Amino acid sequence: MKFPAPVSVQWIADLIQAETAGDLTAGVTGINEIHVVETGDLVFVDHPKYYDKCLNSDASFIIINTKEVTIPAGKTIFVVADPFESYLKIVKHFRPFASTAKPVSDDVIVGEGSVIMPNVFIGRHVTIGKDCVIHPNVSLLDYTTIGNNVVIQAGTVIGSDAFYYNTKKNRDVWYKKMLSCGNVIIEDYVEIGAGCTIDRGVTSVTRIGQGTKLDNMVHIGHDTLVGKNCLFAAQVAIAGGVVVEDGVTLWGQVGVSKTLTIGANAVVLAQSGIPSSLAGDKVYWGTPTEDASIKRRELVWIKRIPELWKKVMQ
Amino acid sequence: MKFPAPVSVQWIADLIQAETAGDLTAGVTGINEIHVVETGDLVFVDHPKYYDKCLNSDASFIIINTKEVTIPAGKTIFVVADPFESYLKIVKHFRPFASTAKPVSDDVIVGEGSVIMPNVFIGRHVTIGKDCVIHPNVSLLDYTTIGNNVVIQAGTVIGSDAFYYNTKKNRDVWYKKMLSCGNVIIEDYVEIGAGCTIDRGVTSVTRIGQGTKLDNMVHIGHDTLVGKNCLFAAQVAIAGGVVVEDGVTLWGQVGVSKTLTIGANAVVLAQSGIPSSLAGDKVYWGTPTEDASIKRRELVWIKRIPELWKKVMQ
Amino acid sequence: MKFPAPVSVQWIADLIQAETAGDLTAGVTGINEIHVVETGDLVFVDHPKYYDKCLNSDASFIIINTKEVTIPAGKTIFVVADPFESYLKIVKHFRPFASTAKPVSDDVIVGEGSVIMPNVFIGRHVTIGKDCVIHPNVSLLDYTTIGNNVVIQAGTVIGSDAFYYNTKKNRDVWYKKMLSCGNVIIEDYVEIGAGCTIDRGVTSVTRIGQGTKLDNMVHIGHDTLVGKNCLFAAQVAIAGGVVVEDGVTLWGQVGVSKTLTIGANAVVLAQSGIPSSLAGDKVYWGTPTEDASIKRRELVWIKRIPELWKKVMQ
Repeated sequence: MKFPAPVSVQWIADLIQAETAGDLTAGVTGINEIHVVETGDLVFVDHPKYYDKCLNSDASFIIINTKEVTIPAGKTIFVVADPFESYLKIVKHFRPFASTAKPVSDDVIVGEGSVIMPNVFIGRHVTIGKDCVIHPNVSLLDYTTIGNNVVIQAGTVIGSDAFYYNTKKNRDVWYKKMLSCGNVIIEDYVEIGAGCTIDRGVTSVTRIGQGTKLDNMVHIGHDTLVGKNCLFAAQVAIAGGVVVEDGVTLWGQVGVSKTLTIGANAVVLAQSGIPSSLAGDKVYWGTPTEDASIKRRELVWIKRIPELWKKVMQ
Repeated sequence: MKFPAPVSVQWIADLIQAETAGDLTAGVTGINEIHVVETGDLVFVDHPKYYDKCLNSDASFIIINTKEVTIPAGKTIFVVADPFESYLKIVKHFRPFASTAKPVSDDVIVGEGSVIMPNVFIGRHVTIGKDCVIHPNVSLLDYTTIGNNVVIQAGTVIGSDAFYYNTKKNRDVWYKKMLSCGNVIIEDYVEIGAGCTIDRGVTSVTRIGQGTKLDNMVHIGHDTLVGKNCLFAAQVAIAGGVVVEDGVTLWGQVGVSKTLTIGANAVVLAQSGIPSSLAGDKVYWGTPTEDASIKRRELVWIKRIPELWKKVMQ
Repeated sequence: MKFPAPVSVQWIADLIQAETAGDLTAGVTGINEIHVVETGDLVFVDHPKYYDKCLNSDASFIIINTKEVTIPAGKTIFVVADPFESYLKIVKHFRPFASTAKPVSDDVIVGEGSVIMPNVFIGRHVTIGKDCVIHPNVSLLDYTTIGNNVVIQAGTVIGSDAFYYNTKKNRDVWYKKMLSCGNVIIEDYVEIGAGCTIDRGVTSVTRIGQGTKLDNMVHIGHDTLVGKNCLFAAQVAIAGGVVVEDGVTLWGQVGVSKTLTIGANAVVLAQSGIPSSLAGDKVYWGTPTEDASIKRRELVWIKRIPELWKKVMQ
């Protein structure tokens, strides 16, 4: 998330009651997760294991729970007891949860020729392009951007919160939600089936690329980036932080684990489970996925075990 | 889709700006996909590979991109440069997308004793029989027909568009939607769980047979015909153009590939993936599905490999 | 289900037109399924195979289709021709289906700080605690109880009917619905993703324990009891009557069969299918689930078959 305008180090320090060290002059332009930080961003870290990674990332500002680190030139640290709570405080300040009694927010921008059907919910800061159809009972939550010529079938949810929890277990309720302040961008000519769910980015963007088509009940996790002209059949589920390159086809009920990459034009057969990155331009099958031809041959080999057994054990 | 009344060859020729040849006198009664064409129907074909199939199908009228074919007696061809675009033009004429601000269309017919709960969307040309319950946040889209004693649980979508695209890739947006002009018929005593999606036929009907019961989050693809007294457990997904005969049981998370037939009273165990037609009256398991007893034995054989290895490789 | 107040044996006998035998003096406090009956409850049984089980269960009152049984001391039988129909009659009396035109029932109790977003349906006898967020297009059906600090993402359905049918096939419509009169309890700090479905108990409760987090499109069957601090990833489906103990993690697309128990802190890897109970504190994988390390080794063994074949068959 970028802030509406850069804020001073002092302002952040006051908000989260932090001690500061390093460069105190630069403006803080936004807050992001470590995977997607950019220059000017704030990031938080609360475990020594990740101190160096965060300090040496693209982030310019680091919320941290120690003073005993070397601060890279031009960077700033904010020292607090609980960096996660500071993250939550900043997100709540810039993206407070806004209740509303209006099914369609007054500030929605809808392009010419677009149709919003009944029983649709549209939150704040939503933009819808030209010649779109948003079918009944769809929910477009805050900060969703829809391109031109997009169709969203009935009952679909876009912009739900990330499934992302702080798992420190030193409390009664083990899992504490990392509040989502990211968004969803649906590009031109995308079509999304009925009953789909697309989570917003935790701090960044979940994107569905131009011309991609989703069948019904497809789930797309937070911060996942789907390329152009992909086809996902019914009940595909993709976890968070995944990169799906252009032209990828996932057949029905395929599951994709988090933070991996699927190469361009890969085809993954139905019900496969993808645990790690796949090269493009190949056909895959199975759980865990393998080259489909290898997997098919494996099924033949399994059928030959009785013959082996007879020969060996006779 | 049948037209409201038969139209003349000349009228169609004018609409899609086609040259005609063959019998010019008969009335065109509807338009259909090649899989479901009937006498009197229009069909379109744009690839030489399928010319003969289309010309010799039950269709009486063929939109085609060549004159160089032999026209069967009594049939008519419409010659255009892009038959797919002509199909879209005809569908848009007879089934234009209709936006509305009314959650429940004025023309809905609801039988005695039926209850429509709040937040339900009901499109145009929808009929609901007697003693039904349509739970909250359900979407019944245009041309849906619901029989008597039907229950539809909350959040379910009936009549969403087919996931069916023209995949000619000579353009920026690879996949161009084949507009759906079909419908959904839900027969008497059917019960449909929460969060289900049932797509309308592309040009014909998606049907759920009498007494069939669907658990939550079941997906039924376009033009699929489900028989009587079937049971589908949660998260079953059936692709388009499938025939499920009477009395079939599909347990949870089963996936069914397109245009196949599952024989009467077949039982398919949970998480199975069905790639091709299955005979009735048997129990199946696995991906790809096999006779369940064979699949179970296979798991035992796999567990014996180490013993074989020890014997052979010692 | 407990009745609002205990009713007399005579009153029940009149309602279902039963002959009675045994203790005629005690008050009937509720009606329940055999799996969850308590002292004071009515239960029904219509098959000789289960007569003894029902008569000797915790139920105090038994609706049965024979007089020829020994009635345990202090218990009462109600003799009718069709006990299942008597069950339906009693449920319809105490929990009649109530149609309404109100999206939010007048009797809902909402705690301080809780937000109900637009297009939400809330049925009768629903309680929502403090500091909750109920996102748009959610359906909370009759008798649902939500604790404090609960978040329910858009499009989710809570309290849909059980997928539970009487399968006596001596009629045209094979499956006759066992009407649900149970409820759903969502405890404090639970978060439920978008597009989830949680069925009410048939006669008892479906419960999601404190601090448990559900990702999108998770299905929870009737009468399932989920413990505290569990994590279920997207598209998990759990059938009815399951016990999930505290701290269990189910990764994406896991399927769980009915009436089994998953022990505390078990972890089940993505796409696994659980056919029977699992001990706690272990990691599982596969369909059917096994210890994950055994399953992983099995995949290695399968890859060695060609080597075995070469050695043996050369």
